[in-house]
Amino acid sequence: MPTLTVTAPDGVAEVGAGADLADLLLPHVELDDGDIVVVTSKVVSKAEGRVVEGDREDWITAETVRLVARRGPTRIVRNRLGLTMAAAGVDASNVTRGAVVLLPEDPDASAARLRAVIAERTGRNVGVIVTDTAGRAWREGQTDIAIGAAGLLVLESFEGRVDAHGNELAVTAPAVADEIASVAELAQGKLGGRPFAVVRGRADLVLPAGDDGTGSKALIREDGADMFGYGAREAVVRALVAAPGDDAPFGAPVTAEEFLDLLTTCGVPARVDGATVRCGSEHEGRATILGFAHGWSAQRDPGGVDLRFHRTTP
Amino acid sequence: MPTLTVTAPDGVAEVGAGADLADLLLPHVELDDGDIVVVTSKVVSKAEGRVVEGDREDWITAETVRLVARRGPTRIVRNRLGLTMAAAGVDASNVTRGAVVLLPEDPDASAARLRAVIAERTGRNVGVIVTDTAGRAWREGQTDIAIGAAGLLVLESFEGRVDAHGNELAVTAPAVADEIASVAELAQGKLGGRPFAVVRGRADLVLPAGDDGTGSKALIREDGADMFGYGAREAVVRALVAAPGDDAPFGAPVTAEEFLDLLTTCGVPARVDGATVRCGSEHEGRATILGFAHGWSAQRDPGGVDLRFHRTTP
Repeated sequence: MPTLTVTAPDGVAEVGAGADLADLLLPHVELDDGDIVVVTSKVVSKAEGRVVEGDREDWITAETVRLVARRGPTRIVRNRLGLTMAAAGVDASNVTRGAVVLLPEDPDASAARLRAVIAERTGRNVGVIVTDTAGRAWREGQTDIAIGAAGLLVLESFEGRVDAHGNELAVTAPAVADEIASVAELAQGKLGGRPFAVVRGRADLVLPAGDDGTGSKALIREDGADMFGYGAREAVVRALVAAPGDDAPFGAPVTAEEFLDLLTTCGVPARVDGATVRCGSEHEGRATILGFAHGWSAQRDPGGVDLRFHRTTP
Repeated sequence: MPTLTVTAPDGVAEVGAGADLADLLLPHVELDDGDIVVVTSKVVSKAEGRVVEGDREDWITAETVRLVARRGPTRIVRNRLGLTMAAAGVDASNVTRGAVVLLPEDPDASAARLRAVIAERTGRNVGVIVTDTAGRAWREGQTDIAIGAAGLLVLESFEGRVDAHGNELAVTAPAVADEIASVAELAQGKLGGRPFAVVRGRADLVLPAGDDGTGSKALIREDGADMFGYGAREAVVRALVAAPGDDAPFGAPVTAEEFLDLLTTCGVPARVDGATVRCGSEHEGRATILGFAHGWSAQRDPGGVDLRFHRTTP
């Protein structure tokens, strides 16, 4: 019977800049090969001196690559690590008042360093995950996710595998590193004092010593490949104000036939003409916005009245 | 030291319509008060006779409330349970070829029934979660989530709680039922044969006997409150084609001042006039689309040329 155990040691010392994470953890646990060590990014950040003074809003801006959505004072952004999070992952809890904690500079590297130190001091081959807490689209509440990983298969792959009935498995990639982050949170809680957890029972996910794997980056959907790269309202505003030729990451551009279909659906009669799509210029505004939103840009026919659309991205 | 254990029994019999889930589980586990029993929706559906013949695409349409996003053959929809999922949660794996499995009619009720039967036969007070596998915005891979729950606090609340430094905890609601679903998946795997898991160590989340709690519905963000209720491209198309007065769920409508700010940002000079917002009719197209997307609808001034916007939703 597969059994998983998760332990989150109490009594770990308060972490300051320059702290050695392995020193903090190892007195409290007996590690085995194949264990997965989970640590909150908060503690990694503190050890790495990422606690800063200054205005939280300014730090959020500094950590932001682009705005994804905003509602009132809440900014959901894509940050420099590629993570889509409220407040860019900048946090002001479990830290001295007035200070804010930035995410680690490179959480995959932080995980790899901790893995190496654990191997050196204990001889054990473990996987390491660095976690943070994140909200989700469509669902209330937050879960912990893996923002750093080393020595671990972060996505299982069942592609091409069949079940007992011979059906191909539709769900091909359980995000096991995120699932492990979540189970660690259940043992750690949110009130501080338990920054580490050890998950035992999925040694099959731990990579051989010396192989740190893809890290957590494999869990981040590429910006242009995401259908939810903007909030619904922000997408509309962006489509209205964007400069022509700005290839906003609304997802992979649609084919000429799909674009034609969209234009027609939106009341813009059009036709495919070789590699371009054409419509009458009386539909310029609407057709241009649709084109922009789907990876096509408009040009007026030289000397003519038609609009000619061509793909802005390959 | 907080310890969580998760066990997923092997050797559970194949499930047919009318099967008694407690009969299948109880021979394999010794339950304690405060345990959390997790069962896949696949098995609940089979027991409840939700395996159907017919075209999968037709069944997806039947289970769909509205389209959220589409890319090629993949439809992400909001289904009749309020879940935003690829293919509406209709699945064709781990079932006879040609058949498809619909989600349970009411997974919270399914969870409550199983909880009651377990209490009756064992005298134990457990929480029950029904799980399904779902993709996420922004991140690759899937995790298991709680689509049904009984006798369990599904969202922890730290609102108003402070940490050891006196800071208010910014993250106020860990979605513990989803985290428990994820840890169960880690023990169950995806190849079938382990439909149940028992999670021990968070008895604090289990409600008193007789109190089934909110169920999993508390984890679903209300349609109009979601910033990601449409894919970015779908939001743009919807804004272009929607009928005036159709209050698309783009999120809570913005205030007059915010709407004014948006209009100005998008090159539409406007002004606030009492409870309405006004702009010149030369900006009709763009202003109407922006208004639609933000909960405001346009009317031409009787006998005048200005557009007058008023809130479509309270």
